Amino acid sequence: MAKPRKRRLLSKLKPRKQSKFERKMGKAPGTITYMGKREDSESVVNIMEYNQDELNTSNPSDINSIVAHRDPPLTSWVDIIGLADENFIELVGKRFGLNSLVMEDIVDTTQRPKIDEYDDYLFGVFKMLYIDEETSEIVYEHVALVLLENCVLVFQELEDDVFSGVRNRVKNQSGRIRTRGADYLFFALLDAIVDNYFVVLEYLNHRIETLDELVYQNPTQEIVQDIQDLKKQVLKVRRWISPVRELVGRLIDSENPLITKDTKVFLRDILDHSLEINESLQIYREMSMSLMEMYMSNMSNKMNEVMKVLTIMASIFIPLTFIAGIYGMNFDHMPELHWEHGYLMVWIIMIVLFIGMMVYFKRKNWL
Amino acid sequence: MAKPRKRRLLSKLKPRKQSKFERKMGKAPGTITYMGKREDSESVVNIMEYNQDELNTSNPSDINSIVAHRDPPLTSWVDIIGLADENFIELVGKRFGLNSLVMEDIVDTTQRPKIDEYDDYLFGVFKMLYIDEETSEIVYEHVALVLLENCVLVFQELEDDVFSGVRNRVKNQSGRIRTRGADYLFFALLDAIVDNYFVVLEYLNHRIETLDELVYQNPTQEIVQDIQDLKKQVLKVRRWISPVRELVGRLIDSENPLITKDTKVFLRDILDHSLEINESLQIYREMSMSLMEMYMSNMSNKMNEVMKVLTIMASIFIPLTFIAGIYGMNFDHMPELHWEHGYLMVWIIMIVLFIGMMVYFKRKNWL
Amino acid sequence: MAKPRKRRLLSKLKPRKQSKFERKMGKAPGTITYMGKREDSESVVNIMEYNQDELNTSNPSDINSIVAHRDPPLTSWVDIIGLADENFIELVGKRFGLNSLVMEDIVDTTQRPKIDEYDDYLFGVFKMLYIDEETSEIVYEHVALVLLENCVLVFQELEDDVFSGVRNRVKNQSGRIRTRGADYLFFALLDAIVDNYFVVLEYLNHRIETLDELVYQNPTQEIVQDIQDLKKQVLKVRRWISPVRELVGRLIDSENPLITKDTKVFLRDILDHSLEINESLQIYREMSMSLMEMYMSNMSNKMNEVMKVLTIMASIFIPLTFIAGIYGMNFDHMPELHWEHGYLMVWIIMIVLFIGMMVYFKRKNWL
Amino acid sequence: MAKPRKRRLLSKLKPRKQSKFERKMGKAPGTITYMGKREDSESVVNIMEYNQDELNTSNPSDINSIVAHRDPPLTSWVDIIGLADENFIELVGKRFGLNSLVMEDIVDTTQRPKIDEYDDYLFGVFKMLYIDEETSEIVYEHVALVLLENCVLVFQELEDDVFSGVRNRVKNQSGRIRTRGADYLFFALLDAIVDNYFVVLEYLNHRIETLDELVYQNPTQEIVQDIQDLKKQVLKVRRWISPVRELVGRLIDSENPLITKDTKVFLRDILDHSLEINESLQIYREMSMSLMEMYMSNMSNKMNEVMKVLTIMASIFIPLTFIAGIYGMNFDHMPELHWEHGYLMVWIIMIVLFIGMMVYFKRKNWL
Amino acid sequence: MAKPRKRRLLSKLKPRKQSKFERKMGKAPGTITYMGKREDSESVVNIMEYNQDELNTSNPSDINSIVAHRDPPLTSWVDIIGLADENFIELVGKRFGLNSLVMEDIVDTTQRPKIDEYDDYLFGVFKMLYIDEETSEIVYEHVALVLLENCVLVFQELEDDVFSGVRNRVKNQSGRIRTRGADYLFFALLDAIVDNYFVVLEYLNHRIETLDELVYQNPTQEIVQDIQDLKKQVLKVRRWISPVRELVGRLIDSENPLITKDTKVFLRDILDHSLEINESLQIYREMSMSLMEMYMSNMSNKMNEVMKVLTIMASIFIPLTFIAGIYGMNFDHMPELHWEHGYLMVWIIMIVLFIGMMVYFKRKNWL
Repeated sequence: MAKPRKRRLLSKLKPRKQSKFERKMGKAPGTITYMGKREDSESVVNIMEYNQDELNTSNPSDINSIVAHRDPPLTSWVDIIGLADENFIELVGKRFGLNSLVMEDIVDTTQRPKIDEYDDYLFGVFKMLYIDEETSEIVYEHVALVLLENCVLVFQELEDDVFSGVRNRVKNQSGRIRTRGADYLFFALLDAIVDNYFVVLEYLNHRIETLDELVYQNPTQEIVQDIQDLKKQVLKVRRWISPVRELVGRLIDSENPLITKDTKVFLRDILDHSLEINESLQIYREMSMSLMEMYMSNMSNKMNEVMKVLTIMASIFIPLTFIAGIYGMNFDHMPELHWEHGYLMVWIIMIVLFIGMMVYFKRKNWL
Repeated sequence: MAKPRKRRLLSKLKPRKQSKFERKMGKAPGTITYMGKREDSESVVNIMEYNQDELNTSNPSDINSIVAHRDPPLTSWVDIIGLADENFIELVGKRFGLNSLVMEDIVDTTQRPKIDEYDDYLFGVFKMLYIDEETSEIVYEHVALVLLENCVLVFQELEDDVFSGVRNRVKNQSGRIRTRGADYLFFALLDAIVDNYFVVLEYLNHRIETLDELVYQNPTQEIVQDIQDLKKQVLKVRRWISPVRELVGRLIDSENPLITKDTKVFLRDILDHSLEINESLQIYREMSMSLMEMYMSNMSNKMNEVMKVLTIMASIFIPLTFIAGIYGMNFDHMPELHWEHGYLMVWIIMIVLFIGMMVYFKRKNWL
Repeated sequence: MAKPRKRRLLSKLKPRKQSKFERKMGKAPGTITYMGKREDSESVVNIMEYNQDELNTSNPSDINSIVAHRDPPLTSWVDIIGLADENFIELVGKRFGLNSLVMEDIVDTTQRPKIDEYDDYLFGVFKMLYIDEETSEIVYEHVALVLLENCVLVFQELEDDVFSGVRNRVKNQSGRIRTRGADYLFFALLDAIVDNYFVVLEYLNHRIETLDELVYQNPTQEIVQDIQDLKKQVLKVRRWISPVRELVGRLIDSENPLITKDTKVFLRDILDHSLEINESLQIYREMSMSLMEMYMSNMSNKMNEVMKVLTIMASIFIPLTFIAGIYGMNFDHMPELHWEHGYLMVWIIMIVLFIGMMVYFKRKNWL
Repeated sequence: MAKPRKRRLLSKLKPRKQSKFERKMGKAPGTITYMGKREDSESVVNIMEYNQDELNTSNPSDINSIVAHRDPPLTSWVDIIGLADENFIELVGKRFGLNSLVMEDIVDTTQRPKIDEYDDYLFGVFKMLYIDEETSEIVYEHVALVLLENCVLVFQELEDDVFSGVRNRVKNQSGRIRTRGADYLFFALLDAIVDNYFVVLEYLNHRIETLDELVYQNPTQEIVQDIQDLKKQVLKVRRWISPVRELVGRLIDSENPLITKDTKVFLRDILDHSLEINESLQIYREMSMSLMEMYMSNMSNKMNEVMKVLTIMASIFIPLTFIAGIYGMNFDHMPELHWEHGYLMVWIIMIVLFIGMMVYFKRKNWL
Repeated sequence: MAKPRKRRLLSKLKPRKQSKFERKMGKAPGTITYMGKREDSESVVNIMEYNQDELNTSNPSDINSIVAHRDPPLTSWVDIIGLADENFIELVGKRFGLNSLVMEDIVDTTQRPKIDEYDDYLFGVFKMLYIDEETSEIVYEHVALVLLENCVLVFQELEDDVFSGVRNRVKNQSGRIRTRGADYLFFALLDAIVDNYFVVLEYLNHRIETLDELVYQNPTQEIVQDIQDLKKQVLKVRRWISPVRELVGRLIDSENPLITKDTKVFLRDILDHSLEINESLQIYREMSMSLMEMYMSNMSNKMNEVMKVLTIMASIFIPLTFIAGIYGMNFDHMPELHWEHGYLMVWIIMIVLFIGMMVYFKRKNWL
């Protein structure tokens, strides 16, 4: 039974293109395969090295010069922008002694958020979420952070402004960032990512409120699509954001010497924020379900109204038309037709019937 | 497909104002930024210092005089009302040696409930919930408590009466409050906050019961909006109240020397209350879903009734009208028209039909 | 938008009376405030003291005489009936060295089930559930048990028969109760409470089965209310019963010397019963949801039937009436009217149409 | 409000018979009360004693002769069939030194599955599930197993064939059963019980598939009842089967010397099966919910179809009838009536209208 | 009540064939019974033996020759294809010292995914999922892996290409596979299985997107069946895939010396992928529920539209037809009939009524 039916739909399935996943299959784990969409972007390297007194910035084009820059007493922030050049990434990875699995994840833009601890470094993948100002849609950016002893490596696809606040604090010596080590920088970057999530939450909240009004004023099928689209957005955002809570929690509990106890106090703050974000997403989820319920009840309300109008019109005029039909018959012997006041009486009967119906519907609260 | 549709709604999104979150972004963690709405309120300080025999109250206007007041053998209750003056809060924080993250949370009125333990103090954020007597709505107030060795700091936006019971007990030497230390005061304040949650629960319960009656008597679309509004209220209240359970539980399990074993017995009581509150909220949630179900079933019931009236009227009179129509035709040769009792016979047929239909509908239980 | 709508309902909220909770607010924790409804009942004390050979019963009216009765080698069962007399309860509490929080919970009839361990006693609050024979409704009774070294204190509002089985076993020396200590008595009382829950479950089961039949036979709006009422009952019962599982589990795991290893074997039996009760409640919950689903499907079924009757009647007679209408027109030149068999032909056309429609609806399975 | 409504239903509640639970109430825990339905069945005892070389079977009628048969070097399988004879069960229990709570559970056919460890024996209650070949319904049989040092006691209500496979293996010396001790026998019996659950799962699966087809072909109200009945079946089966997973898991983790390490490897296999069973039941649950959804969507689809037929018929013929009605009026001055081609023109107008409507509905995809 | 109804359906149940489960019942645990569908396939053995420098492949037909090939310094990959020959499987099992339960699971193609640790080997069952290119359906293949000290045994039903990538890497010495031991081979095979799951997820995603479009364009009953079919697919896939997460997690935590620390780093990567897969499946589940909701809302939207057309047509023309009916009556005394402009006036009245109705419906937004 089910089989022939299913076939019909399956024939409607558009042919799928060979996906990136399929291209990657069969390759050895640890093979560096860029999975993003910006395939011809070049990699750019920005380096900031600082301690409390000093600050050097550079844009080395030679990969080996990155190495030369590394100087223990300074904290280095190495920013690699553009992940499509797999060879370059591999060179960077080798220079800093990264595992091949780590390098695979750095360029795998579909990788879910994670934090892995290795012997002498800590590797994290996160998603930056933006609202695209033009299209008002949520944009996902892949970012990978590596915390080494005196150095933080940042791998990202685009040079964007989520980290610009941190960059300014380093440059302007504002806050405590210049007085602390690489682990604080790692925290500060993570904090910048998480802080931006709140903007996305506000956007979702704004959309829910807008839909909440529209669903009363003008519940169209379009609204349903928007509600469902909103639900999907919440699901997707949750997918990228919700693992952060557990990851940061694990980081706080870990014994890793790369994270100092002072920085853990700050990580607790991020943990707190990610708890709040998860709660908000849960609430948005329930509110989008409420929107759907409201839509459905509104719909059935409207249907009721339509049916009442039909029922009232039909119930009133069908009997009256019947009466008129009676005296439209052509029988030879219909005494009423010849009564002097026959016509008047019919009118009276019909008006009485009409008023009776109106009273009945009034009592039923249908009018 | 989905894209062009989505665009249309997005264009309906009202322009969002730049939010407080966006203003805060890019700033260093630990930056003190007031997030509430009472931006021009001034900070007032009330101090009570007491032990079993002595009680001093003061309203120092100078921040340094607060310091002078601190005297170990007395328990101090320092009440700071009004959080908009960020400089003042920073001064207070510095005086008592609070971490900058703590100070950030004190003025962040959007902060979710939390308890953080630091080396020599304990920091908690809670929400006080009121019913606004005028508008009958739930009002949320941010409150931050700091437990130091002989001192409890209270940061709140408004001077309100949740703590007045505690204040009176201190003044009147009633209960055991004067004989115990700062940790008991901390507990007593927390207890006052949690006790007030029950009033909010009663208000919610009262609304549910009111809706429960209305949904039977007069199920309008307005009711749906009220039910959904109630659901949102329950969600929000749950958000602010439910973390308390876990926080207090953690406090009881903690080894912190600031909390004595005697006070933990009392904290268990709060834990118990917060368990009860969470259960109630869960039940309210399920009951608001029941309300919606009842509304929907009531709606479909009404629809059924409307349709029955229509069907009965139409089913009875449409065939009768048809018969009348037959004998309204103008054919030259229609023998029935000339029968002596033709008219009477038609009436008889119609009445029989009418009665037949009535019996049929009666049997179907539609009348 | 939402605001003006909400106001309207809020104005319908009946004024709330000042609740017991509000009266209790601001009082110190540990204040003994009776929260039940039987405010003018007096407290009565029944004492049974027994060991394997001996049995003494007494009804001391003087609180101090209770003390005199306490004699280590005997196990005492002190039954205090009526909780409204707060002073008396306080006296009892002081005599047995109970914490003020315990005494507060003893008279707080809204307290959820709990077991608290103190240094030399164990305190438990439970709910006894009955079916009121007259109204067939579920009645909740508050009961507090205190297990001391050789004594069990029972605080209850009414003298009722849940414990009468235990009382008889003590009197008749049946079972092992007379050979065991106070902890076995404590268990036996708890067992009597839990056994009674099964009667309530049977009542709920009986109601579900009754509704299950009614929902098919005669699905009225009244049924919906009953289903929803049932759901509320299940929620309430679950609230009072479900904590028992965890409480007893904790008791079994506890190291408390008041509970002997022998008695723990019996407590495991209660644990087992409470697991079973929780499972049953879960099933009842799902079954009441099924009832609602069945109601809704039945409703939409009925609607379908109503619509089919309407559609069939209208689809058959509206075209026929149209044909009759055609030949009721008064044009000067209508040749059919003058045909000899015109009238007959119209009848034939109409009958063919009628049969055609019937066949069509038959094929569609609408008849 | 709610009260008077509720009363009405409650009056419809049929009087409940006094239940077995109520008869049991007030009795001491450990009282042996048979709770099953085969109240006049007699107990029969079958004994098999075996080791690798020897096999003795007997049907002792005297309870004391059971004892005589017990001989350490042999493994005994004592099968007691028929549980209604409470005295006999008590004798058996005493002979093997079973706790009174254990004996209570042996005859309590309503007992949920459990495994309790005692000092020198292990007690388990399980449910055997069958498909009754005649009625195609699921039948539940209560079975209690006791594992002693060299002996397994089996208590069951009926002699049935779930264990016949094990019996044959013992008789035919097939497999490893004869070479192993009592714990392997215990496992083999449990394995036979769990294996039989798969047959019940297949039956449920078969019913779901049958309903899945019917719900498309002929969605009647009867189907809804069957779907709901299926849901209840799944709930009940889950109730009896799902505890097995946890029980076996606990057995594997336990340190009990009665279970050898070799046998634990086999118990892991049962654990695995019970995991699989639980997953299947979860899937059946979701599939029965899907069935209901499909029914509802099918229903609303049918309603749509009915309404379309009505709307099309009414929309086409009501305007046409109106036109016919116009020219059926008897005004003295109606010029059209006297036009030579008036009648023809009216027909043309009506046919044009008819075609127009058809095109309109065609475009709307209603035809 | 419920009983006679249920019977009717049960009679519709097609007779079930005796299932494989029933055939297996009563047999001893550890009996090797092939449960798959390819019952007459022969077993083929492919062996690859390699270390960093050497690579031997062979297809021994004699089972004892397999043994001869085993040489410690080389890593052996023994691939057994075709599981129907139970005797052959038993021989292999005995040769490598596998437990009889393991051999039972190797040929039990219905076995759920599992990993069992034995003293000197590790046994795992997994499901390979493919998209059948022709039918576009998901195909499940059973595969069993055994990790011995220097050897991995692979048991599968068909020789297929999931492992061909691994085979090539071994042959071409690409990646690190030739430099590592049997545990890395075990991981590489598991990784190949899990990587293939992503292709299945993409297929599911593609189907959801296709349905998402269709549900707007053309919501037919067929779509409902497809949505429900999709839900079932997601359920089934989840069943086979989701245990992998827990299994791999346990493997990482285990102390088994067969898995080296280096390989555990790679297993963490699989763990990560299986987490991602589970999240995706959860999202697909929610999206298929959304699809159903959209369908239902679309359906009720369409119903509303149908009803509006009916109501508008009926409400406009029924009153007009009534008016025409009035002046079709044949009373002797109907003054209007004789007025000179009577006919015109009726037309004017009818046109005014028509316009009034149109305005009314326009205002109601029904047009």
